[in-house]
Amino acid sequence: MSAQILSGKEVAAVVRSRVADRVAALKERGKSVGLATVLVGEDPASEVYVRSKHRAAEKAGMLSFDHHLPADSTQQEVEDMVRSLNADPEVDGMIVQLPLPGDLDGNKAVETIDPAKDADGLHPFNLGLVVLERARLQPATPSGIMRIFEHYEIPTQGKLAVIIGRSFLVGKPMALLLGAKGVDATVVQAHSRTRNLAELTRQADIIVAAIGRPNFVHGSQLKPGAVVIDVGINRTDDGLVGDVDFESAVEVAGAITPVPGGVGLMTVAALMENAVTAAELSIA
Amino acid sequence: MSAQILSGKEVAAVVRSRVADRVAALKERGKSVGLATVLVGEDPASEVYVRSKHRAAEKAGMLSFDHHLPADSTQQEVEDMVRSLNADPEVDGMIVQLPLPGDLDGNKAVETIDPAKDADGLHPFNLGLVVLERARLQPATPSGIMRIFEHYEIPTQGKLAVIIGRSFLVGKPMALLLGAKGVDATVVQAHSRTRNLAELTRQADIIVAAIGRPNFVHGSQLKPGAVVIDVGINRTDDGLVGDVDFESAVEVAGAITPVPGGVGLMTVAALMENAVTAAELSIA
Repeated sequence: MSAQILSGKEVAAVVRSRVADRVAALKERGKSVGLATVLVGEDPASEVYVRSKHRAAEKAGMLSFDHHLPADSTQQEVEDMVRSLNADPEVDGMIVQLPLPGDLDGNKAVETIDPAKDADGLHPFNLGLVVLERARLQPATPSGIMRIFEHYEIPTQGKLAVIIGRSFLVGKPMALLLGAKGVDATVVQAHSRTRNLAELTRQADIIVAAIGRPNFVHGSQLKPGAVVIDVGINRTDDGLVGDVDFESAVEVAGAITPVPGGVGLMTVAALMENAVTAAELSIA
Repeated sequence: MSAQILSGKEVAAVVRSRVADRVAALKERGKSVGLATVLVGEDPASEVYVRSKHRAAEKAGMLSFDHHLPADSTQQEVEDMVRSLNADPEVDGMIVQLPLPGDLDGNKAVETIDPAKDADGLHPFNLGLVVLERARLQPATPSGIMRIFEHYEIPTQGKLAVIIGRSFLVGKPMALLLGAKGVDATVVQAHSRTRNLAELTRQADIIVAAIGRPNFVHGSQLKPGAVVIDVGINRTDDGLVGDVDFESAVEVAGAITPVPGGVGLMTVAALMENAVTAAELSIA
């Protein structure tokens, strides 16, 4: 018995095609959709991420604006760039690629973004709207994971969901989205200080592993038939591996996201969704 | 065997006396602390709440400003009042007493408050900072409950905390505060759609009941020795009762807050704490 594979590739393609339709519909109304990125410094990984966002934006029919500041930029220069994009009517969504180099304060830079243009959904105002269940722009990775649940029609109501990891990028907003009215999972927020984690995971109908430790969750810790969402992308000697030990988990789980080809592809798709949503809201 | 009673009266007195000391210290530096309330309409319960906030502010040595608008005020008039208080240097913290009457939009009114003056800690920006673990002004009721844990030195690290109820006033911010780094509880966010709730509560070291149903949690559903925080204030034919059946719970729990005399007193105390914190930050 082997778990159903939840394909991030398949879901991301669906999401991106829907985004492209919405971009085209806006174009017919005379409204272009523009996504801007701000990259500070020369971090190769950040450059790769930024390029993939531009590629996705262009494929969706968006304008894409690539702003690159030198690593020795001042905080003021970074925030001035953000403010000029806030004021630019061609920019509907923007991303400040984190982390910022050196002593630059990423939090302050993100807080400078107009919440209505916050494509990452990480501005405190937008995170607060997630708490209030009124968010339009949601943190991209958990939002992308919700699309996987919707696409595969995975029931969530009354299910016990154990989320491992409490980052503000994934774990915490994921807990809020899965526990929201209408989604209605009962959510356990676990983390590195959780005791007897396996006791909890063995009760879980849904597991979201986002703790950044290779092969941390083993099949023996799963309830048979559980839905397993693996957010981990860990570089090891064996290549990229997730936070879930896939080989053992696939024999126990009912459904599982692979690494790569799973959640990783959803983040950029959800970013594109945020950008077109921001554009729609800007003319609503 | 009977549980320790966690006295909101005792903890609130300690918190309020610390607040009074901080107000006095600011006064020595030439800074007064001002708390403003905005009450719209004539709801008797709201009037009682507002009066108790003014009494607490005055006892702590704060200036207190009582603004009363008629029930037929427009949204614009309510928001103009908030904006004038945002601009008033004598006002460090403000409270818009919810709910607003009629069709007035309480969310929009709250979002008009300068987050730096948000004594209730309910502005989306401040709720987002709770997600980010960087909040200075926290939602008052959960913040007051944290003071109970601190005062009685109740261990939280690695403990399993089941929170029943997912309101943005209590349940959700409570989950975030108990699961934050340094507090480190493993948090279960349960709610009206949770199945087999008793299975979860029987595993819980800590229970926070905030679901608004009289005597909803029974002693038989508790783990012996559990810490029980009862946020409910339900008016019944038998008088005020909590969300926990006190008589049965007190025989099983290790510690429990009574109703009244428990959490209810902490909310106003935590509001006062927010007001003086806002004043301190305004001159920092």
